[in-house]
This record gives sequence, C-alpha cells and structure tokens, in this order.
Amino acid sequence: MEIYYTLQIISSTYCLVTLQSSQGERFLSLQILMASAIASSLSRLSLLRLTTITTSPLTPTTFLTIKPKSSNRCRFVSSSMASGSKESPSNNPGLQASPDEATKDYFMQQTMYRIKDPKVSLDFYSRVLGMSLLKRLDFPEMKFSLYFMGYEDPTSAPSDSVDRTVWTFSKKATIELTHNWGTESDPDFKGHHNGNSEPRGFGHIGITVDDTYKACERFERLGVEFVKKPDDGKMKGIAFIKDPDGYWIEIFDLKTIGSTTSVAA
Amino acid sequence: MEIYYTLQIISSTYCLVTLQSSQGERFLSLQILMASAIASSLSRLSLLRLTTITTSPLTPTTFLTIKPKSSNRCRFVSSSMASGSKESPSNNPGLQASPDEATKDYFMQQTMYRIKDPKVSLDFYSRVLGMSLLKRLDFPEMKFSLYFMGYEDPTSAPSDSVDRTVWTFSKKATIELTHNWGTESDPDFKGHHNGNSEPRGFGHIGITVDDTYKACERFERLGVEFVKKPDDGKMKGIAFIKDPDGYWIEIFDLKTIGSTTSVAA
Repeated sequence: MEIYYTLQIISSTYCLVTLQSSQGERFLSLQILMASAIASSLSRLSLLRLTTITTSPLTPTTFLTIKPKSSNRCRFVSSSMASGSKESPSNNPGLQASPDEATKDYFMQQTMYRIKDPKVSLDFYSRVLGMSLLKRLDFPEMKFSLYFMGYEDPTSAPSDSVDRTVWTFSKKATIELTHNWGTESDPDFKGHHNGNSEPRGFGHIGITVDDTYKACERFERLGVEFVKKPDDGKMKGIAFIKDPDGYWIEIFDLKTIGSTTSVAA
Repeated sequence: MEIYYTLQIISSTYCLVTLQSSQGERFLSLQILMASAIASSLSRLSLLRLTTITTSPLTPTTFLTIKPKSSNRCRFVSSSMASGSKESPSNNPGLQASPDEATKDYFMQQTMYRIKDPKVSLDFYSRVLGMSLLKRLDFPEMKFSLYFMGYEDPTSAPSDSVDRTVWTFSKKATIELTHNWGTESDPDFKGHHNGNSEPRGFGHIGITVDDTYKACERFERLGVEFVKKPDDGKMKGIAFIKDPDGYWIEIFDLKTIGSTTSVAA
C-alpha cells in the first residue's frame, strides 16, 4: 500500500499532518504545535508534499535512529542554561538542568476540580469559554461522573466510546470536571472551595485569549462574574473571572502579557 | 534545511511522529491516534523511515491537495455527531454544540497553585516529573514569585527575558507555582490545602506517562509519596502521587487507560 504524507502549515505555530493512501483514503489528520524554530523556517511554504512510502513488510526499509548528537545536546544545554539566565539552575536551587530520559514522553494532560452541577458547568465551559466535551465517564457504583472539557475538535474523536477515552487522554491541557451525583439538588450542599481563601492552595486555571479587553466585554455581556477586570489594579490587561462554582480563571493575551509583567521578568 | 520525518508504531492504535533536522535537532515528537485501517497495515513495522525534504522555498515542491470526497466528509461528521453519542448535547443539558466564533483562539494555558518552598518544588517537578522551568517572574513589591513549569524545551526559549514570558504564555498546559516569600522558613506556616479533604474543590493534575508501572517503580526508587499505587483498588494501572506540598498528581498511560475505564465509557 502506498501512503502519502503531507504537512500543511496553517499558522505560525500549527501545522497539519495528513496520511492518505494512493486511493485517496484519509487515515489521519492532526494539528501539531510546532517549535518556533521549525515554524519560522516552514511558514514560507503553505503545503509540502513529503513522499510516498510502500509499507509492505517485504520491502526493505531504512531505519533512521533518532539520537541527537551529544555535542548538540551540550550546545543546547549551554545556550539555554547560560549563567546569566534568570531561569538557569544556578539561579534556582533544586532545579535540574536535564530531564531524566525516563520522563521524555510525559505530558501534562488534565486539571481536575469538583463541580456542583454539570448542566451549569457544561454551559459555562462550552458557551462562555468555547470548550468542547471531549469525553464523559460515568461511575454509577461510586455515584460520580467525569466531564473532560478542552479546546479540541470533538468531530475528530473516534466513534467507539473506549477509543474516545484514549483519544481524550492523549490530549494536553484538558479540564476534568468531577460531579458527585446529587450535589446539584442538595439544599445542604455548601459548595466547593476555590482555594483562594483560607485554607489556600489551588489558585486558578488560565486561558489565553486573542484580546483580553474584547474577551472581557463579551464576558460582561454574558453576565460572567469578575474577580478583577482588565483595568483594575496595577496589572492592566489581565482579568480574573469566576466559573459557576467560584473557581478563578485568569484571562490574558499574548499581545500584552509581556509588557504587563515586564517589571517581573 | 533538511528535515527527517519518522513514524514509529508504538501500539496497535498509536504511532509516534518525529521531526528532526539533519543536524539531529529534534523539533517535535508526538503520539498519534491512528485509524484502525492504518494501524493494522502498519503495525507489522516498528519504525519507518519516511524521507528527507528540503524546505528552502527556492526548491519547487509538489503540492498534494487534501480534499476528502464530500461523501467521506459526511460520513465522518455523521459518525462523530451521532445522537447516540454519550457526549452529544442531547445527552448533556447545558452543553453547546458549536463554540462561539469569538472563542476560536482560546487555549488552556496554565494551572496555578501555591507552594511552600521553590527549592523543594523545583527539584520535584524537574527531577521527578521531568518538567523544565520555562519562566520565573518575581514581584518584590508584593513579595511573591511565579515559576512556570512545563514539558517544553527551554532551549527554544528566546534569550530576552520579556520575550521569554510571551513564549511561556504561548505554551499549553503549564504549571504556575506561586511562592509567597517567607513560607519556606516560617515555623508558623501551616502548609497549603490540596483540596481533597474538607473543604474540597481542586482535585489534582494528571500526567500521561509512557508506562504507569515503570514510572511508578521509578517514583518509588526516588522516594515519592503515593496516594494510590497502580495495583491498589479497582482502577488498576492508575496511580496517584503527592508533590512536596501534598497536591495530588494522577499518573496513567494511554496503553491501559481505555480498558481501565471501559466500564465508565
């Protein structure tokens, strides 16, 4: 079988990889967040044809071993770990310069917090924040459900329910909303603790938006509760809103975050 | 610049695509959920060398147009939006089917929680979990510092400190550790609340690893405290560990998460 691989640049940070057979059958299509180095070098081209490969096991294939040269590795370490950098290990006791090889495939997948009422939270996270429901898991014996929300296209999810779970857990940066059944209709339920009053701990999640002021005008129109509006206090251009349970959500954009926090950089 | 593309089959449903320059610089590495058709045809090969391409815009490239037949597109949409889907809006009151266009550039960037001692937390998140310090922000007037940790390569960060802030905020799924100065040496400091005892709220973050059992053996060797080992309880193959402040971190892998949670899917 012949398979075509294509790489399409769709923005300065994302590309789209598609695998397609010679008969036009499309096997996968995915967005990839590119490192800035490759983004800048590739962004001049809108679409690259890679090649066809023949996948018959009878055809000898050349194996390419992925082993960054040690000299390169040293160079990388030394360039980013310059002693002058605020983020260098020498300026941050405890920090390890080189991640253990055993952790190389790790990624941060989820942030879980409890919610009172899924009807209210699903409305807020989908209608107000634009997330989709990637996966719902129900545990009747233990009387709770999990709602995984995120900025992924659910139309690309597998139709099989178990495959959809794996697909969801393969996505970075999801929110896992935990609903213990009954809280939504329990008059004695006191609500959840958002971590920003005693006893403190968890603070907030943060969403990057295109334009903080524009986003906050929309939030105001939608009746969202604010902890801090973008022009309140010293940190202009950063806002905090509350979700239906009172959890804080920081709102900022890449156009202003650098100048707003420059005094601390 | 020459770039190598490699595709490695890591399971019956996942492959790993890596982009690497001819100098050995690794640009991206990602796991892809494959359609079953390609999985079965490719699974006989463990690693395919694709090809090198030259990205100079002066080199003529052949464009391959990706246009699924309209009949296919309809099939895709209908399969994922089936009314029978557990995740469909009809089964989830409050859920909006189509995100507002105003939210199209939003992404989930950070999860913030407070820490007692950066020396201890930086060691844990870098040495044990393999994260890097992407950015530190210091606010002397308000006596706190922020440490942004994540699974990004800090060698690709800009050297300018403000640019590095913007670079950090452009990355998904970071952890923002907030250190209020002085807690690390204050004998009266009572510690932070992890949200899993009363008053409850925040639950945990979750890290996807290559192999839960292998990862947990390493955590045990490193003296990490467990809330749940992978073979404890009903949910085999899922573990919970504690960070130095007592926050919970769920550990799981894509090989087993589907079967472990299949009863709830």
